[in-house]
Amino acid sequence: MADPKRRKRSGGRAGNTRREAAAIDQMPWRLPQNIDRPTEPLTPEGVEAVHDGAMRILEEIGIDFLNEEAIEIFKEAGCKVDGENVKMDREWVMEMLSHAPSDFHITPRNPDKQIHVGGKTMLFGNVSSPPNYYDIEQGRKTPGTREQCANLLKLTQYFNCIHFAGGYPVEPVDVHASVRHLDVVHDKLLLTDKVVHAYSLGKERVEDVMEMVRIAGGMTHEEFDARPHMYTNINSTSPLKHDEPMIDGCLRLARRGQAIFVTPFTLAGAMAPVTMAGAVAQSIAEALAAIVLFQYVRPGVPCVIGTFTSNVDMKSGAPAFGTPEYMRATQMTGQMARFYKLPMRASGSCAANVPDGQAMWETSNALWSAVQSGTNIVYHAAGWLEGGLIASPEKFIMDCEVIQMIQRYMEPAITAAGPDEIAFDAIKEVGSGGHFFGIDHTQERYETAFYQPFVSDWRNFEAWEVTGGMWTAERAHRTYKQILEEFEAPAMDVAIADELREFVERRKREGGAPTDF
Amino acid sequence: MADPKRRKRSGGRAGNTRREAAAIDQMPWRLPQNIDRPTEPLTPEGVEAVHDGAMRILEEIGIDFLNEEAIEIFKEAGCKVDGENVKMDREWVMEMLSHAPSDFHITPRNPDKQIHVGGKTMLFGNVSSPPNYYDIEQGRKTPGTREQCANLLKLTQYFNCIHFAGGYPVEPVDVHASVRHLDVVHDKLLLTDKVVHAYSLGKERVEDVMEMVRIAGGMTHEEFDARPHMYTNINSTSPLKHDEPMIDGCLRLARRGQAIFVTPFTLAGAMAPVTMAGAVAQSIAEALAAIVLFQYVRPGVPCVIGTFTSNVDMKSGAPAFGTPEYMRATQMTGQMARFYKLPMRASGSCAANVPDGQAMWETSNALWSAVQSGTNIVYHAAGWLEGGLIASPEKFIMDCEVIQMIQRYMEPAITAAGPDEIAFDAIKEVGSGGHFFGIDHTQERYETAFYQPFVSDWRNFEAWEVTGGMWTAERAHRTYKQILEEFEAPAMDVAIADELREFVERRKREGGAPTDF
Repeated sequence: MADPKRRKRSGGRAGNTRREAAAIDQMPWRLPQNIDRPTEPLTPEGVEAVHDGAMRILEEIGIDFLNEEAIEIFKEAGCKVDGENVKMDREWVMEMLSHAPSDFHITPRNPDKQIHVGGKTMLFGNVSSPPNYYDIEQGRKTPGTREQCANLLKLTQYFNCIHFAGGYPVEPVDVHASVRHLDVVHDKLLLTDKVVHAYSLGKERVEDVMEMVRIAGGMTHEEFDARPHMYTNINSTSPLKHDEPMIDGCLRLARRGQAIFVTPFTLAGAMAPVTMAGAVAQSIAEALAAIVLFQYVRPGVPCVIGTFTSNVDMKSGAPAFGTPEYMRATQMTGQMARFYKLPMRASGSCAANVPDGQAMWETSNALWSAVQSGTNIVYHAAGWLEGGLIASPEKFIMDCEVIQMIQRYMEPAITAAGPDEIAFDAIKEVGSGGHFFGIDHTQERYETAFYQPFVSDWRNFEAWEVTGGMWTAERAHRTYKQILEEFEAPAMDVAIADELREFVERRKREGGAPTDF
Repeated sequence: MADPKRRKRSGGRAGNTRREAAAIDQMPWRLPQNIDRPTEPLTPEGVEAVHDGAMRILEEIGIDFLNEEAIEIFKEAGCKVDGENVKMDREWVMEMLSHAPSDFHITPRNPDKQIHVGGKTMLFGNVSSPPNYYDIEQGRKTPGTREQCANLLKLTQYFNCIHFAGGYPVEPVDVHASVRHLDVVHDKLLLTDKVVHAYSLGKERVEDVMEMVRIAGGMTHEEFDARPHMYTNINSTSPLKHDEPMIDGCLRLARRGQAIFVTPFTLAGAMAPVTMAGAVAQSIAEALAAIVLFQYVRPGVPCVIGTFTSNVDMKSGAPAFGTPEYMRATQMTGQMARFYKLPMRASGSCAANVPDGQAMWETSNALWSAVQSGTNIVYHAAGWLEGGLIASPEKFIMDCEVIQMIQRYMEPAITAAGPDEIAFDAIKEVGSGGHFFGIDHTQERYETAFYQPFVSDWRNFEAWEVTGGMWTAERAHRTYKQILEEFEAPAMDVAIADELREFVERRKREGGAPTDF
């Protein structure tokens, strides 16, 4: 890694800092600490009621596992198994949960980009898995491509406020499904050095991605297995069902000590009760059913409980995001995650189709509810449109501004109230006739005192108009193009890069993964 | 008022409800209760430090009052007066504050639109005082007119989520300043029946508006004086100064028992310390200095402590709004307002020049910080652009969507967790194979279970595109036009309407108010 020739050949510096000439002047990499007391809409009795509801679902209704291996494991563990249906006692559930760590680390190929999951740490990741792409230059929605996917991966790497790479930031449907995971994870490992993800979509995919992450980190198999280097994220098939490939992928990761996020997608009124506490209770039951399975298989494997509880549009049945109900469901799930002492995942989401006002109020609602709920991992935090059906680079840029503001908001320095901050002497010095611009107290602090935006335009109307009168999405588009132009991939050892390429080529020759599921 | 002929002549129904055919299907009028525990970034020691800082400013530096009457009153009260500078002991300040009510009511001409100020109640008002107007149809910024002002007053009346009318929603510069208050307050009292405001800009204006509010309410002078029917809002001239007309207006209202909001505008780094706790301490000192004067003059007069503490752009010195620093300053001020047991005012604000993404994330930040801080009165909640220099009808509509969502968010029903909400039986009924659309538990609740938007478009991209592919601002513009078309002014007794018109005509003949200040 220290050989400058090698380093030059395989890529430059990751991210950028204020000291470098750069498209934007962004905040440095850090793991933000959420210092706010969470907003807790459930009373203590309400928490008990949701818990009891979830436990009764597990005990009396049960969860379907369309995975034979899981069924055998549940039998072995003494659960009540009837076909695909599994019922489990709350005592056993709570015992399994007691093995789950309340926080852990994931270490990607660049150890400086290690993340801490849990506690007060709050992390943000890129949009994952939209099948379509929209930008204002093309002005329409089209199926995603590998190039668009790579461009969004560059944004994922570029922004220091984005801590991990989720799934494909857009589904590259121009790459055959049998080898898509090979090409895109290859791109991802070259273009980013942050924590990456594997889709749980069949054993070949999961095993391939684990192997690629191992190679990219220059690790032995033992080193890979020794601690988390990657993660998978699964949804349940609500109501009350876990599918074959999802559970299979998780079991494979669990056995190698990698991290697992379980995120039911419970739309109140459709796949879950119309009442939000009921939708949360069902979501908790579905998530816990999988997490306890993984804890039984490998006690202590790092698991995250996720929430994707929202509501449908009463008129059309379409899913809605960033609604008042969504916010409260997220906050309630935060209370439950703390009750079970599990790290929590939420999302930045919206129903809007373009990066406009609606997109930003819905996403702001979603992101602030993540802050208020004490969420540790925010999935889809940048780039999401149309309820997750569209990835947008402009939205990615705009979301990163909001995310940076949230990270700045969490700095305790803003609300420090010591004598230097109360600034009595400065107030006395200025008195009633002057202003604070020129005094020492201001001069010593003004460069770092306030959040500095990169896409917000704070100039007055006339100055803004004279330089083109660009609305936010247009400014964001220009920033996006500028970032792409100057992007340098993070360094990778040439031998590692070769090994990775050879692995991908070999696996392609072998046919990749089956696509008949 | 019961005579249908009279009523027909002078106006129709106020606002609208779900049961009427209407441009939009809005939520009913109500006084929302903020059930969330406030976010409190200051430690208890921090609260003491800000308090001590504010008290030391009042004791050791003093506040300038450019108002002779106020100076004489402070002398009479035993404060240390040196020219315009007034220093006051913290004991006296706290004694005066002990007279101020922690909550109160203001009753406008329609008693059904009475508002409660304080406690957990959270109220929203229209944008006030921008000198300019922008809408996407005209596509540019122009000085405000009486017609635009009237149109924005119609929105103020139309939306049930807007509880009171602030100052002029846009400054109608086509009306001569000497009679502007007569014409615009006349428009306001005809077009709305909500609580209105008087600018403290000279004794004639304040006295005229009080008289017009009295006439509009059909009250005797004694009835008017008996309880609050209106309010004024003043800023200090930071740092550390209160101007002649502002204090004069407040003293006139105080003596007639009307409500007073005192809102320093302390931009950290410009008119206040660059440190946010210092800017808040100064703001508190400036606000309290005026409030204690009014409490001395009329113990128990309703006062509200306001905050307008934000930061400047480090590059240009331009004011910024909805920033992380702004949010924290608002939350800190909330803590101080509770410390002094005073109702609190904050704002919905942004620096953006057009109703785009930036406008909505900045306004969302501002509005959510108002929620988090336990704010009682949100000024400028709908329609504000360009740091308050532009009023926009599209922004008004878009903000009302966000405000409605906040009000829905506050309904405890969303997070109720009794057996009906946990919905164990519904979950059992649906099992793992069905969906919740058709079951009784859903059917009984779905009409009111979720927030119903009026300008958000939750349809998928294709359905949205087929009907024009309109971005949010364009949809908001159409809604605005539709509301204007169907607007009906609230009823007013003909005799009252005549008396009001005659008063305005007489005062115009007399020349209105002097404009040489």
